[in-house]
Amino acid sequence: MNAKIKVGILGAGGFTGQELMRIFARHPNTELVYITSSEFVGQHLSQAFPALVSPSTAALKFSAHPQTVNDAGKLDAVFLATPDDVALRWAPEFARANIRVIDISGAFRLSDSAVFRDYYGLEHNQSEALSLAVYGMPEIYREKIRSAKLVANPGCYPTAALLPLYVYRELVDVTKPVIIDAKSGTSGAGGRKEKDGLGYSTVYENFRSYKTAKHQHAPEIAQELSRFTGTKALLRFTPHLLPMYRGILCSTYAFIQKGKTAADFAAVAHKTAEQEIFLRYRENVDAIELRHVQHTNFCDYAHHIDTETGVVQIVSAIDNLVKGAAGQAVQNLNIMFGFPETSGVY
Amino acid sequence: MNAKIKVGILGAGGFTGQELMRIFARHPNTELVYITSSEFVGQHLSQAFPALVSPSTAALKFSAHPQTVNDAGKLDAVFLATPDDVALRWAPEFARANIRVIDISGAFRLSDSAVFRDYYGLEHNQSEALSLAVYGMPEIYREKIRSAKLVANPGCYPTAALLPLYVYRELVDVTKPVIIDAKSGTSGAGGRKEKDGLGYSTVYENFRSYKTAKHQHAPEIAQELSRFTGTKALLRFTPHLLPMYRGILCSTYAFIQKGKTAADFAAVAHKTAEQEIFLRYRENVDAIELRHVQHTNFCDYAHHIDTETGVVQIVSAIDNLVKGAAGQAVQNLNIMFGFPETSGVY
Amino acid sequence: MNAKIKVGILGAGGFTGQELMRIFARHPNTELVYITSSEFVGQHLSQAFPALVSPSTAALKFSAHPQTVNDAGKLDAVFLATPDDVALRWAPEFARANIRVIDISGAFRLSDSAVFRDYYGLEHNQSEALSLAVYGMPEIYREKIRSAKLVANPGCYPTAALLPLYVYRELVDVTKPVIIDAKSGTSGAGGRKEKDGLGYSTVYENFRSYKTAKHQHAPEIAQELSRFTGTKALLRFTPHLLPMYRGILCSTYAFIQKGKTAADFAAVAHKTAEQEIFLRYRENVDAIELRHVQHTNFCDYAHHIDTETGVVQIVSAIDNLVKGAAGQAVQNLNIMFGFPETSGVY
Amino acid sequence: MNAKIKVGILGAGGFTGQELMRIFARHPNTELVYITSSEFVGQHLSQAFPALVSPSTAALKFSAHPQTVNDAGKLDAVFLATPDDVALRWAPEFARANIRVIDISGAFRLSDSAVFRDYYGLEHNQSEALSLAVYGMPEIYREKIRSAKLVANPGCYPTAALLPLYVYRELVDVTKPVIIDAKSGTSGAGGRKEKDGLGYSTVYENFRSYKTAKHQHAPEIAQELSRFTGTKALLRFTPHLLPMYRGILCSTYAFIQKGKTAADFAAVAHKTAEQEIFLRYRENVDAIELRHVQHTNFCDYAHHIDTETGVVQIVSAIDNLVKGAAGQAVQNLNIMFGFPETSGVY
Repeated sequence: MNAKIKVGILGAGGFTGQELMRIFARHPNTELVYITSSEFVGQHLSQAFPALVSPSTAALKFSAHPQTVNDAGKLDAVFLATPDDVALRWAPEFARANIRVIDISGAFRLSDSAVFRDYYGLEHNQSEALSLAVYGMPEIYREKIRSAKLVANPGCYPTAALLPLYVYRELVDVTKPVIIDAKSGTSGAGGRKEKDGLGYSTVYENFRSYKTAKHQHAPEIAQELSRFTGTKALLRFTPHLLPMYRGILCSTYAFIQKGKTAADFAAVAHKTAEQEIFLRYRENVDAIELRHVQHTNFCDYAHHIDTETGVVQIVSAIDNLVKGAAGQAVQNLNIMFGFPETSGVY
Repeated sequence: MNAKIKVGILGAGGFTGQELMRIFARHPNTELVYITSSEFVGQHLSQAFPALVSPSTAALKFSAHPQTVNDAGKLDAVFLATPDDVALRWAPEFARANIRVIDISGAFRLSDSAVFRDYYGLEHNQSEALSLAVYGMPEIYREKIRSAKLVANPGCYPTAALLPLYVYRELVDVTKPVIIDAKSGTSGAGGRKEKDGLGYSTVYENFRSYKTAKHQHAPEIAQELSRFTGTKALLRFTPHLLPMYRGILCSTYAFIQKGKTAADFAAVAHKTAEQEIFLRYRENVDAIELRHVQHTNFCDYAHHIDTETGVVQIVSAIDNLVKGAAGQAVQNLNIMFGFPETSGVY
Repeated sequence: MNAKIKVGILGAGGFTGQELMRIFARHPNTELVYITSSEFVGQHLSQAFPALVSPSTAALKFSAHPQTVNDAGKLDAVFLATPDDVALRWAPEFARANIRVIDISGAFRLSDSAVFRDYYGLEHNQSEALSLAVYGMPEIYREKIRSAKLVANPGCYPTAALLPLYVYRELVDVTKPVIIDAKSGTSGAGGRKEKDGLGYSTVYENFRSYKTAKHQHAPEIAQELSRFTGTKALLRFTPHLLPMYRGILCSTYAFIQKGKTAADFAAVAHKTAEQEIFLRYRENVDAIELRHVQHTNFCDYAHHIDTETGVVQIVSAIDNLVKGAAGQAVQNLNIMFGFPETSGVY
Repeated sequence: MNAKIKVGILGAGGFTGQELMRIFARHPNTELVYITSSEFVGQHLSQAFPALVSPSTAALKFSAHPQTVNDAGKLDAVFLATPDDVALRWAPEFARANIRVIDISGAFRLSDSAVFRDYYGLEHNQSEALSLAVYGMPEIYREKIRSAKLVANPGCYPTAALLPLYVYRELVDVTKPVIIDAKSGTSGAGGRKEKDGLGYSTVYENFRSYKTAKHQHAPEIAQELSRFTGTKALLRFTPHLLPMYRGILCSTYAFIQKGKTAADFAAVAHKTAEQEIFLRYRENVDAIELRHVQHTNFCDYAHHIDTETGVVQIVSAIDNLVKGAAGQAVQNLNIMFGFPETSGVY
């Protein structure tokens, strides 16, 4: 065995942190040596999360959040699974200490800090770090990720929505409205803390939209969609809360580019799936089911061409905690350190 | 007390039949005297459905389906909660016997029998009855329903989709694609029989679309939408299966008619809600939740105007078994017999 | 129509309060005129609970909790659906003002105030009112309830456990351990407030016991079981939390009295069911299902005699919000005011 | 890397078969080379079960069930995840061909073939193989398993119930009734096929017991409990169906042996947990939650001593598909082939 790199997680007690620990229990190239939490300080993993125990993680103990980068000890990489403001502070510090950072918060995803302020309610005071940050969607930015010091891991909805839009990017007309009707389990809609609107009695046997007017993932999708189509994209994004725990399904309705045919769609769909191990194409949109992607790093996608309306309906599904958060983060880590891209996540 | 009318239900053991019995347990103007089933023949209601027992229904016993209209005894009205082919046969027979019919199947909803054949796989051999049938959506056809001999009770998805589209009918441009992304609990997606795709292990913690390419409710929505807008409507309709039991939420995306404003939308939204007791307007689409309409005959609706895209997002919610089936059927009965329209359903 | 009595509810915004409002929407002998809440003050019922609106309750508006009894206006009866300490204060005040009280909290159920202090953490400073309080289980104490000024409505677990034990009281030997393994949906295990342990992610796809060592319903069951058997009963009571919303199922294991036979059990089981409209006997314990009692005021029960061990397994099921709270409370009201015992709850 | 052994699974398309494939995706000492199914013949794993695909299993294709042992090719071990009658036939054939058999059906668990006939409705015509079969509970029979040709993998309920009873075997008096009130998710109560009683609408928001009078796991528990206590045990076993998918929680109520103390219970509880990696002791029964064992091979257990009744309440939890089926089966394989007992399951 080669020497393993040492990794840490800030905010390991949240949903994404837990999923990271689940992955690191079996990742062959890493050693998880540092986990922090505000709630579980001093507890062993076996006490706090009995289902996550494994030979390589059983002895792990939660530290308090660091006071200085040195508190984290000698790390090769650190994952920030913290609130945005905490990540905004720590990402630059770790990066400056030559510890490579994968930030799973939203702090470094939006390149326009005015938009960031508008959607996150925070002042972005780290413009230097922001200019270094690479948007961590391997299927688009793999080469940049390889050498990045700071990777901004994409949001869960953006991952589900953008991956298939990237596949079909030359076939849809984003100057006409692109309508994204997204549905997520509760783990994608909020964190572990029990708060308003996520109690059992208000989620169970219920369904509704939320943040229709303004969700922080809308500008993230618009930014990337505009970038890879080279056109300012028109977007309508609405997330909904499913009465279940895990998974996001996106129904994206877009106008077909003039002259593009069913054969064109099938061609790019197949071609991408052959090139990208984590993208799986299905020939029927009804075959896209959340249970086929849960606990995996796959993004399943399909399209339905409606000739009468000239609209293509693109359906995609991911596990929001894996491909939409921890899994994609580890995929990024694998790329950054030259491990097989599938290590620990396939 | 006035004399009560006598009513019967064919196919009372299914989801809709059960809901009808629940309503008739408290309906002040009716006496439920005849219930049929292929499965529960000879059983008392208290054996077959212990939760549905009430003083007025406790003694009811399931008969087999009738051989002739006479087997049903003397009825004033009959509900057909049967498969389409059974309703296709019995609706005309009961109507000819001067028993008023509320058909909850799809047999008499589509006025074009070629379309019917295409979507239902049945030959429509009852063109005379079809020409008499009135589409039973009270908010649109109340006057015709009053004297109808045969009411075709609308489908659940059409009810959820069409009611708000009727409200906003002069403000949306249906010559451009109207996209309906609908989500239903399992009771709207299939009957009581346990069949492929509705077992616990395939519904629970799962979400998917179904019948995207061809669902029998699509032509029903298109027919009525075209009728009340006076224009051939362009429609994309996709139903999805929620991991829950009861309720339908429709997200309808439509282009705003040129020159129409937010004030126009608010005006018709408020005005309709004032006139129609079962339509309730909310000012925020995120306030439309299935739990607010479950076990009620209400249709809640709201709209979100997206000025950037020129799209209005209309969200509506109903209980598919009540306003989407049994409740609307009883509302129709109330109109047909001159009872308060709210009897038993409010 | 006769004049209706006027009723009020303190704490109408909680789960039990909501269920009371649902019942009063259809209760023929009452007018609900006063509802209080700490959270919804000033809101109309239609805003706070859109699914509960009915012609008779639509105009209701939440008041703040009263400062004096006079704030409640002229009432004939008041329901206390408040925390225990609030009920402890208000029950005696309303009773003194000649407003008949049905207290749904635990404040007046335990006759021994030392036990009350031990289990509720409150000093019982209302011994006079306590001595007047009647335990509101109609099947046992119907006559006393008729004239009671203050009815202590039973807890949900005690209702589910005690009703069948009362049926079989002469056949089981309570001097040997009576083991009650009870399972409840979340609405029976906690209130509407989202709190620790009742968030979606900790209830969903989970199951566990709680308060095994000390639950406040244990002494309530022991008190009544000892009272109606005339013997100090030995009890082991453990509640569990089901990943669902509504219903309690109790499995009670007790030793059969020497010499008692299967015929004896069948005889009392049938006889009681004939006399008590809300008790329904099933011949097979596996036929006791929560779905058969949900949204009803029934208690279904059955027994299984295990001759090898000499143990009888008694299974019972109720809707904790109806027979276990609001429904039984209204049944008590009906008895107190001479209405049909089934008014509004059957 | 050493050479890996070759394994096959008969009946790989069922719940247990799927779980085995999930485990073999990561098992370092095995190569899964043969999977059969009656339903998925000719399909690749990636088509039939998209969530189970991994680098080592992606190319697997379902064969039909074998006609002769030779059809299975050269195997070192075979898992039978088939119905009982299929296993009854194939287990001896594979064993005779020197392929070691782990039978996950119930065909070889009961040593008394009259009891087998009574509970399984099958004639046990394989007495020679039955006499060779070892009951595959490693914590009890580890040494025998090591050299076994045919391992009868325990049932899910017996695993959950027996493991803690084995821990406390010298402290409970099994000549007095041992009451096991067990609760299981749907995957423990029936297979993948959608059948009566496991449809979404009858499981969801419901709870009930089943097979109270006669469940085939009762004699299995009684046989082993009697064996390791050396006493004919008195048993009352009742399984229940939880509205969830995965996990079994057992509440076992037993009388404490005369003279045994709380200290005695704590001592054996701690001691066993130190020796057995998959048994985890908790000091509080309420800390036993299904979510802590789901997707793991652990059995968590705790006890509550009730001094008033002299009853000890033992609570245990497992994942029925892992420790209760596939995980325990692989643990047995590991023992049989000298791999680390935790390979692939920790």
